[in-house]
Amino acid sequence: MMTLANEEGARSLREYLRQKHLYEAYVPDQTKPVDFDEFWKKALAQSKGVKLNVNRSPLKTAMKSVIAEKVTFHGTDGTLLAGVWVRPRHSAAGVPCLLRFHGYGGDRGSITQDAHWILQGYSVFSIDVRGHGESGDASPYAHGNNGSWVTQGILEPEHYYYRQVFIDGVRALDAVSEFPEVDASRIGLLGGSMGGGIVLGIAALDSRPKVVISDVPNLCDVGLAIYQKMEGSLQFVERFMARRPQHVEQVFQTLAYVDHVNLAERISARIRVSAAMRDFVCPPQTIFGMYNHLKTDKTIKVFPFSGHDAPGSPLHIEETIAFVKESLG
Amino acid sequence: MMTLANEEGARSLREYLRQKHLYEAYVPDQTKPVDFDEFWKKALAQSKGVKLNVNRSPLKTAMKSVIAEKVTFHGTDGTLLAGVWVRPRHSAAGVPCLLRFHGYGGDRGSITQDAHWILQGYSVFSIDVRGHGESGDASPYAHGNNGSWVTQGILEPEHYYYRQVFIDGVRALDAVSEFPEVDASRIGLLGGSMGGGIVLGIAALDSRPKVVISDVPNLCDVGLAIYQKMEGSLQFVERFMARRPQHVEQVFQTLAYVDHVNLAERISARIRVSAAMRDFVCPPQTIFGMYNHLKTDKTIKVFPFSGHDAPGSPLHIEETIAFVKESLG
Amino acid sequence: MMTLANEEGARSLREYLRQKHLYEAYVPDQTKPVDFDEFWKKALAQSKGVKLNVNRSPLKTAMKSVIAEKVTFHGTDGTLLAGVWVRPRHSAAGVPCLLRFHGYGGDRGSITQDAHWILQGYSVFSIDVRGHGESGDASPYAHGNNGSWVTQGILEPEHYYYRQVFIDGVRALDAVSEFPEVDASRIGLLGGSMGGGIVLGIAALDSRPKVVISDVPNLCDVGLAIYQKMEGSLQFVERFMARRPQHVEQVFQTLAYVDHVNLAERISARIRVSAAMRDFVCPPQTIFGMYNHLKTDKTIKVFPFSGHDAPGSPLHIEETIAFVKESLG
Amino acid sequence: MMTLANEEGARSLREYLRQKHLYEAYVPDQTKPVDFDEFWKKALAQSKGVKLNVNRSPLKTAMKSVIAEKVTFHGTDGTLLAGVWVRPRHSAAGVPCLLRFHGYGGDRGSITQDAHWILQGYSVFSIDVRGHGESGDASPYAHGNNGSWVTQGILEPEHYYYRQVFIDGVRALDAVSEFPEVDASRIGLLGGSMGGGIVLGIAALDSRPKVVISDVPNLCDVGLAIYQKMEGSLQFVERFMARRPQHVEQVFQTLAYVDHVNLAERISARIRVSAAMRDFVCPPQTIFGMYNHLKTDKTIKVFPFSGHDAPGSPLHIEETIAFVKESLG
Amino acid sequence: MMTLANEEGARSLREYLRQKHLYEAYVPDQTKPVDFDEFWKKALAQSKGVKLNVNRSPLKTAMKSVIAEKVTFHGTDGTLLAGVWVRPRHSAAGVPCLLRFHGYGGDRGSITQDAHWILQGYSVFSIDVRGHGESGDASPYAHGNNGSWVTQGILEPEHYYYRQVFIDGVRALDAVSEFPEVDASRIGLLGGSMGGGIVLGIAALDSRPKVVISDVPNLCDVGLAIYQKMEGSLQFVERFMARRPQHVEQVFQTLAYVDHVNLAERISARIRVSAAMRDFVCPPQTIFGMYNHLKTDKTIKVFPFSGHDAPGSPLHIEETIAFVKESLG
Amino acid sequence: MMTLANEEGARSLREYLRQKHLYEAYVPDQTKPVDFDEFWKKALAQSKGVKLNVNRSPLKTAMKSVIAEKVTFHGTDGTLLAGVWVRPRHSAAGVPCLLRFHGYGGDRGSITQDAHWILQGYSVFSIDVRGHGESGDASPYAHGNNGSWVTQGILEPEHYYYRQVFIDGVRALDAVSEFPEVDASRIGLLGGSMGGGIVLGIAALDSRPKVVISDVPNLCDVGLAIYQKMEGSLQFVERFMARRPQHVEQVFQTLAYVDHVNLAERISARIRVSAAMRDFVCPPQTIFGMYNHLKTDKTIKVFPFSGHDAPGSPLHIEETIAFVKESLG
Repeated sequence: MMTLANEEGARSLREYLRQKHLYEAYVPDQTKPVDFDEFWKKALAQSKGVKLNVNRSPLKTAMKSVIAEKVTFHGTDGTLLAGVWVRPRHSAAGVPCLLRFHGYGGDRGSITQDAHWILQGYSVFSIDVRGHGESGDASPYAHGNNGSWVTQGILEPEHYYYRQVFIDGVRALDAVSEFPEVDASRIGLLGGSMGGGIVLGIAALDSRPKVVISDVPNLCDVGLAIYQKMEGSLQFVERFMARRPQHVEQVFQTLAYVDHVNLAERISARIRVSAAMRDFVCPPQTIFGMYNHLKTDKTIKVFPFSGHDAPGSPLHIEETIAFVKESLG
Repeated sequence: MMTLANEEGARSLREYLRQKHLYEAYVPDQTKPVDFDEFWKKALAQSKGVKLNVNRSPLKTAMKSVIAEKVTFHGTDGTLLAGVWVRPRHSAAGVPCLLRFHGYGGDRGSITQDAHWILQGYSVFSIDVRGHGESGDASPYAHGNNGSWVTQGILEPEHYYYRQVFIDGVRALDAVSEFPEVDASRIGLLGGSMGGGIVLGIAALDSRPKVVISDVPNLCDVGLAIYQKMEGSLQFVERFMARRPQHVEQVFQTLAYVDHVNLAERISARIRVSAAMRDFVCPPQTIFGMYNHLKTDKTIKVFPFSGHDAPGSPLHIEETIAFVKESLG
Repeated sequence: MMTLANEEGARSLREYLRQKHLYEAYVPDQTKPVDFDEFWKKALAQSKGVKLNVNRSPLKTAMKSVIAEKVTFHGTDGTLLAGVWVRPRHSAAGVPCLLRFHGYGGDRGSITQDAHWILQGYSVFSIDVRGHGESGDASPYAHGNNGSWVTQGILEPEHYYYRQVFIDGVRALDAVSEFPEVDASRIGLLGGSMGGGIVLGIAALDSRPKVVISDVPNLCDVGLAIYQKMEGSLQFVERFMARRPQHVEQVFQTLAYVDHVNLAERISARIRVSAAMRDFVCPPQTIFGMYNHLKTDKTIKVFPFSGHDAPGSPLHIEETIAFVKESLG
Repeated sequence: MMTLANEEGARSLREYLRQKHLYEAYVPDQTKPVDFDEFWKKALAQSKGVKLNVNRSPLKTAMKSVIAEKVTFHGTDGTLLAGVWVRPRHSAAGVPCLLRFHGYGGDRGSITQDAHWILQGYSVFSIDVRGHGESGDASPYAHGNNGSWVTQGILEPEHYYYRQVFIDGVRALDAVSEFPEVDASRIGLLGGSMGGGIVLGIAALDSRPKVVISDVPNLCDVGLAIYQKMEGSLQFVERFMARRPQHVEQVFQTLAYVDHVNLAERISARIRVSAAMRDFVCPPQTIFGMYNHLKTDKTIKVFPFSGHDAPGSPLHIEETIAFVKESLG
Repeated sequence: MMTLANEEGARSLREYLRQKHLYEAYVPDQTKPVDFDEFWKKALAQSKGVKLNVNRSPLKTAMKSVIAEKVTFHGTDGTLLAGVWVRPRHSAAGVPCLLRFHGYGGDRGSITQDAHWILQGYSVFSIDVRGHGESGDASPYAHGNNGSWVTQGILEPEHYYYRQVFIDGVRALDAVSEFPEVDASRIGLLGGSMGGGIVLGIAALDSRPKVVISDVPNLCDVGLAIYQKMEGSLQFVERFMARRPQHVEQVFQTLAYVDHVNLAERISARIRVSAAMRDFVCPPQTIFGMYNHLKTDKTIKVFPFSGHDAPGSPLHIEETIAFVKESLG
Repeated sequence: MMTLANEEGARSLREYLRQKHLYEAYVPDQTKPVDFDEFWKKALAQSKGVKLNVNRSPLKTAMKSVIAEKVTFHGTDGTLLAGVWVRPRHSAAGVPCLLRFHGYGGDRGSITQDAHWILQGYSVFSIDVRGHGESGDASPYAHGNNGSWVTQGILEPEHYYYRQVFIDGVRALDAVSEFPEVDASRIGLLGGSMGGGIVLGIAALDSRPKVVISDVPNLCDVGLAIYQKMEGSLQFVERFMARRPQHVEQVFQTLAYVDHVNLAERISARIRVSAAMRDFVCPPQTIFGMYNHLKTDKTIKVFPFSGHDAPGSPLHIEETIAFVKESLG
C-alpha cells in the first residue's frame, strides 16, 4: 500500500515513506529484567497447577444457524472469566477455533461481530478481558490505580494486570483445546489495539496457535510509546508516574515484563501485524520496534493515512479473512 | 426497558419517565404543503419512466460461503448508484432480501457487516447512499450548499437531496424485486440515523417491504429537530438559514416534503422504531412525533441512558434479528 | 451569602434565588430497598468480626514540629488501606482527630494540606480511599467495570465499591479511636465531593464523630444526579447502563443502598454541608434533596456563582476552621 | 423575518416564536441605585470640566479618495484615547459623521471597514475603546481584575471600566461636534456586542446623536445575562464573584449603574436594535428586556437561527445602510 | 517584517528565521503527470467551445454611489455560476476590474466588502465559487465524496472539483473582459486561502490578468500539505484515502493536475503571495514550495506570529491596496 | 529523578534523557539592550525615592495560633499593593520571612496555604501581584492590551507590567525588612510559574534574600518560549504581535529587559529551580536556558513525566521545605 507506481504518488508520499524507512530500520534494544524468562516460566507453571473449571451453558440467540454458548473459566487467582463461544450449527467434527480479544475499555460485543467467521466454518471464542464486560477481577491489588486497568498492580510485576491477562489468555487456549468439538490443530488468535497486544502475549507464551492477527497492537516498545502517544491508556501510566515519581523505576521494571519488544522473539506462529502512520494511541514506530524482533513467518501492513481505527476498513477485513483462511484452512 | 419492577428503580428513573410520558402524548400537527401528495405522486411516476439499467457483476470475497455481487443502477437523473448484494452460496430459490442504508457521512461498509443476515439465510443489498461511498451524484444543483449533503438543493423541493434519495431507495426496491433469486414477498428495510430516515421514506412511498427497522431515524419533525439538536447534520441547515435568512421560508417548505411527520401515515409495513433519550443528533421527542403518526403495526424501543449510538448494543442487535425473523420468516 | 441587602442585588440574583427556593422545598421520596437497614446492620456486624491489624510507622517529614506516621489497617476483605496520621509534636495528651477523605480519582495528597489543622492543635488522619493512592483493593469483583471505581461491583450490593468504602471509613474510625494519643470524644469528619459523600456515609453508620464537614457531596439523590450531572464519575454509571440495559434495575437497586437520601436521617453529628449552584458534577438540587432529610443540627452553605471547586475559596476555608473549632473545641 | 407566510414555516418555527413572544412581553423591573441619576449627572458634569485636548494628524492611506486622520483626545482621567477619522476627499462642507465602536477584545480595525460609509458620503470616527488597540488606560484601579476589562474597577462605581467608557464616548461626541468639517446635526452611533452596549450608553447620556445602530448589545439586564450567558466577557464577572463572594453585592451595585435596563428610557435618538435567538454571549431575552424599556422611535430585528455573529450577514448590512440613510439623510 | 534591526529582536526571532531560511531554499520536485500540459490545453479548448450566456441584471443596494449587478454565466458543464459586479456610479469609461474569490466554505459576502476598491475607482467582480453561495454545481460526480467539495470527483481528473473551478475562473475572466465598461487591460485577481489557490490557477491558465494577490493560498505542494496540515479541507482528502486505500494513487494523480508546484511556472502576471508561519491550514513551507517555482515578478510577505487569518490585519490590507494601485494604476 | 539505576528504566527513559542532555548544554546568547544595566539601576534608584507607606492592620482568622495582618504598601506609581503577613503567635523575636508570589491570573489564596511554613516557625508575606486579587494597578498605560496583564505597557519598557512587578517585589522586600519582628538576615523568596519568574527578578535586583525557590518559572528565554509554548500567557503576546506587526521589534525590545536569560547572572542567593519535561506553558528548554546562566549556588529538579502542575506533588513539597530549612535555618 505504501508503494506507488507512478512518480507523482511516490513524491507525494515522500514524508510517509521517509518515516516508514526509518521505522523499518528501527531495532530497539531489549530491556529484559534479569529474571525475565524465569518470570514467565513461573507464571505458566503456576497456571498449570490451577484448575480451569470450565463451564459451558447454552446461550439463546436469534441466529438460527448458530450455536452459542456462554463459557466461563477461572483465572489463576480465582477470577471468573467469561466469554461466548459461537460455531456453525451444522459443522463437521473438528471445527477450527479463533480466540478474539477486544480493545481497552471495550467488551466482547455481540455475536454478530463473529458472524463472518461462522460463515467461514470457524468457531470463535470471544472473551471479555479481565475487568471488562462480564469478566470480573479477583486479583488483590496492593496499591491504588489511576482509574484505569493499565495501572492496576503496576508496582508488583507478579500482580500486574497484563501479566494476569496474558495468562488468562493462555488458559482460554487451554479451555478451547479441550472442547471435543474443536480441532486443536487449527487455532488462531485475533485482536486489535489492546486485543492486538494480548494476542502477541499469548503467542509468545504458547505455541499452540497456528496464526496470529495483531492489529495496531499496544504494549510495544512501551518506553517510547509513553513518549509518543497522545491518546489512549498510556496516558494513565504517565499520570501515575507524574504523581508518584518515587515509583518511576518500578513502573518501567514492571512494564518490561509485558513489553513485546522483549516477548516478540518467542512467537512461532505465522503472524500478520498492522500499523497506522497517524496512530496516536499505538504509535507506528513502536509497532515496528516490536515487529523487527519477530523471528517467525511475518507480514506487516502499514496504513499511510489512517489512525488507530484503520483496521476497520472493508479492504482490511477482507484481507484478514483471506490471511486466516490461507493459514488455517 | 423503561419499566422497572422495584420501587427504587421506578423512582430513580422518574425524570426519564416524565419525559417519556410527555413524548408519548406528543402528536405534532402535520405541515404538508398543498401539493404534498401530488409532489410524491409525480416523483414516483417520473421514476417509473426512467430505466434502471441494473448491472450485476461478481465481487471477489474471501468469504467462501457467500456470493457477492456489485450492483449498480441509475437514479432518475442518471446518477450511477452502487451497492453490494450478498447472499448465502447455498440458498434455496426465493431468498428473502433486506435493503440496508447507512448513516450520514458513512458508506455501506464491509460485507462482514451483513454476515449475520446471511447466516440467517437472508440476502442483503447494502447501498451507498447518493454522494456517499461509490455512489455518485449527477443531480444538477442550482445553488451552493453548506459543505453538506443535507443542504444540497434545499431551495428547490424537486431537486432536494433527500427527495432524490428516497426515490433512489424505491428504485433499489425495483431492482431487487426483479432479481430472479429473490422472493419479492419477503423484502425488508433496515437502517439507523440517516438510514433510519431513508427506510421510513421508502416505506411511505412503496408498500412492497414487509418489515421496516428504523433505528434513531432522522428527518422526523424537522422544525423541532433543528431547534433541539446539538450535533449532526441539521447544524448545516441551521447555518444555511443563518447566512441566508431570505430563504428560511423556502428551506422549511422544502423540508416539509421529506418530514416523516407528514409521511409516516402512509406506511403500511410492520415497523420497529427506536429512540434514545440522550440522543442529541436525532432527538427522541421528534421520533415520537413521527411515531405517533404511524398507522401500522408498530413498536418503539426506548433507550433511557443512551445516546445516538444506542442501536449498536448487543442486546438490541439480537432483538432486531428476532423481530425480522418473526416478520419475514 | 444568598441574601442581598439592597434591592438591586436581590433582583439581579432572582434566577438563583428562584432555584434555591425550589430546592429548599425539595424533599424526594426515599428509595430504600426492603432490606436496607438489615444490609447495613449486617455490614457493620461483619466488620466488627474482622481484625483491624493497625500498623503505625514513623514517616519522615521535613516539618520539624509535626509528627507524621504512616498508618495501615485492613478492610473486611483483607484490603490493605493506607493513610497518614499527623499531629503537633508538642500536643497535650488527648489530641482531637479529624479524618479527611479526598475526592474521586485523587489521593490523600501532601502533609502540608493538613498543616492548618495541626496549627490548631488537631491531629488529622488522611486516608487514601480504596483503590486510590497507596490503598489497594483486594475485593473480588464478579463483573467488569467501566474503567472507573464507581462501577466496580455495581451489580452486587454486598460487593459494591462504595459499600466497602463506607465500611473502610468506619474502620478508620475504629483505628483512630484506639490511638492512645487521641481524645476519642473529639473526632470529626472532613471531605469534599466523593470525600463529602464518604463522610456522610460514615456519619450515618457510626455516631462517634462529633462534627461533619461535607462539601459538595456526591451520592445524593443518585437517580436525579445521573440525570442532571454533566461531568464527573456518574457518567461512568450512565455508560455502564447504556451498554448493559439488562442490568439497569440492578444498578439502581445497588445505588439505593448508598444513596444519602436514604442514609441522611441516621446522622446524629453536627453537620455543615455545602452546595454550589453551578456545580455540574454534584448538582445542588441533589444535595438539597439529601439535606432536607437530615434530622440533626445542620447548616447548608450555598455558593451562588461557583462550580464544583467552590469549597476551595479562602473565605470558605476560614469558615470551615471556625465551624470545626466551635464544634470540637 | 420571524413571520412566515405559509403554514409549514409557521409551524416549524413554533419553538422560536414561542420564545420570542415571551420575550416581547418581558419587562424586567429596573434596578436603579438611589443615586442613579445623580451618579450620571455628576459624571457628565465632571467631564465638562476636563479639557479634550483634541489632536488631529494626517494618516497615510493607500486609498486615494479618502482623507484619513488619526485623532486623539483625553479621557477625564487623562487617558489618551485614539481613533481614526475618515471622510470622502471631495466632500461638501458639513459632512455627516458616524461614531463606530468595536466589540470586546477587538479594536477599530482597518480603514476599509468604513469604506462603504465613505462611499455614502459619510465620515466615520472609529475609536479604539479604552484599553483596546491604541487607546491606553490611565485610570487607577484599586483592586485586581480577572484578566478582563469588564472586571476593572468593578468594586468602585465611579472608577468602573464601563462608566469611563461611556463618558469617553460622550467626549468623542464632543470632539467630532467641534470638527469644522462635520455637520453636527447629522451624527450617528454604530456598534455591535460591546460596541452595541456602548452606543446605548452614549445615547442615554447625550441627545446629540440622531440615530443609533445597536447590534446584539451587551450590558442589558445584566443579572439575567450573567445567568444565561454561556460565552463572553460576563464569564469573567461570574468568576470574580465566585472567588470573592464577599463582594457579590457590590458587584451588582456597580453593574446597576451601567445596566441598560436602567439607562434605556433616557434615549431619545431613533434606534434600531438587533438580537439573535441563538446568541449565547448577549442572550436575546436580555436585549428584549432593555428594548421594552426604550421610549423612543425604535425597531428590533430578530435573527431566528443565528448566534452572536448574526449582524455580519450581507442582508443585515444592506438594511443597516438603508436605515442610516433614511435617518440621517 | 522578518528582519529586525536590533540584535535582541533578531535573536528572539531566531526560530522563525531558521525555519524561514529553510523554506526559502525549498524547491520541491514537480510531479506533473505525463499529460499535464495536454490536460489543461484540452480543458481550455473545451471551455472555448461552450457559450458563456452571460446575464447581467441590476441589483438593489442601499449604497447610492455604487452600481451593483448580479452577473451569471455558465460553466462548461452548464452550471449556473453567480457573482456580483460592483462599480462606482460615476466612473470613467474603461473601469479596471478585480475578480475576487472567497475561501473554502464561504461565499462572496456583502457588497460592502468591496467598498474600498470602489472608492479607488475599481470595479470588482465577486464570484460565488462553484457549490458555494448562489453558484450551483451541475457536474455529474461518479463517486461519493466526504461531505466536502475538495473530494468531489477526486477519482477522475477531468471531473475533479478544482479543475472545474479553475476553468470557471477563466470563464469569469472571459465574461468581464467583454463588459463594455471594463478596461480589459487592467484586470487583477484577488483571493485568500482557497481564493488564493484559485487565483493562482487562473493566472497559470490565462495571461490576461496584470496583477495577482494570492494570500495564504491552498493547493500548494499538496502531498506535503496533507502531511503538515492540522486543520482545513485537506483533512477530508486524508480521511477519503484512509477509508479507500485502494484509491490513494489515483487521488494523488488527480491532485497533481491542480498542484501549484506544477502550475506556478506558467504565471506571467505580477504577483504578491503571503504566508503565515503559524498557519496550520495552508502550511507556510508548502507556499514557499510553490513560490520558489514562480518565474515572474514576485513578492512574498511572511507573517511571523500569525496563523491562517493573518491577511485580515489592517496593515496588510493597506499594503494590498498600495500593491494593486502600483500594479494596475 | 532522571537517573534510573537499572538498564530497563534507563532505556525506557531514553527520549527524555536525550532531550535533557540537549537542554543541559543549551546556553542561549543574552539579548541585553544597550542600556540594560542602566534601565534597572534607574528603576531601583527611582524606587528608593518613593515612600512605601506601609500599613499593617490585624486580620481576623479562625486559626488561633496564627497572627495574621493585612499589609499594604505603595508601588512607585502610587499603586496600592496588598498582601497578608502571617506568623506563629508564639514566635521568638527575629522570625524568618518568606515572600510568596502566586501564578498568572491567581491570587494570594488563603492563609492555610502558608500554614506549613508557620508550623516551621517562619512568617510568610503572601502578596497579590499587581492587578491581581486585592492589589490594584495605578500605572497609566499608553496603549491597549490584549485582555491580559502580560501585554500591558509592552510598547514602553519603563511602563511595562513586569518591570513594575519586579520593583513591587523589591519594595515588598523593603517592607518586610523593616518589620521589627522579622530577622532580615533570614529572608527567602518562593513562587511557581509567574511567581517563579517574579522571584528570579527580585533576586536579580536585590541581594537581601538568602534563598530562592523558583518552580517552573516564566519569562525565561522569552523568544524561544513564545515559539514553543502551547498554552499560557505568552499566547497573548503572540496575538498582540500578530495584530500589530509594526510593533514586533518593540515588543521584543521590551521583553529583553525582563528576560531572565539576561537577569539570571545577577542572582547571588542560593537557588533551586524546577522544570517539567511536559510543560507547555513554561517549556523546560527555556528554563534550562536561564539556569545555565546562573552563577550562584544552584540546583535544578526535573520532572520527567509531568506538566506545568508538577510542583504540586507531595514529594516536591517535602523537598522544598527541606531545602528552605537547610538554607535558612
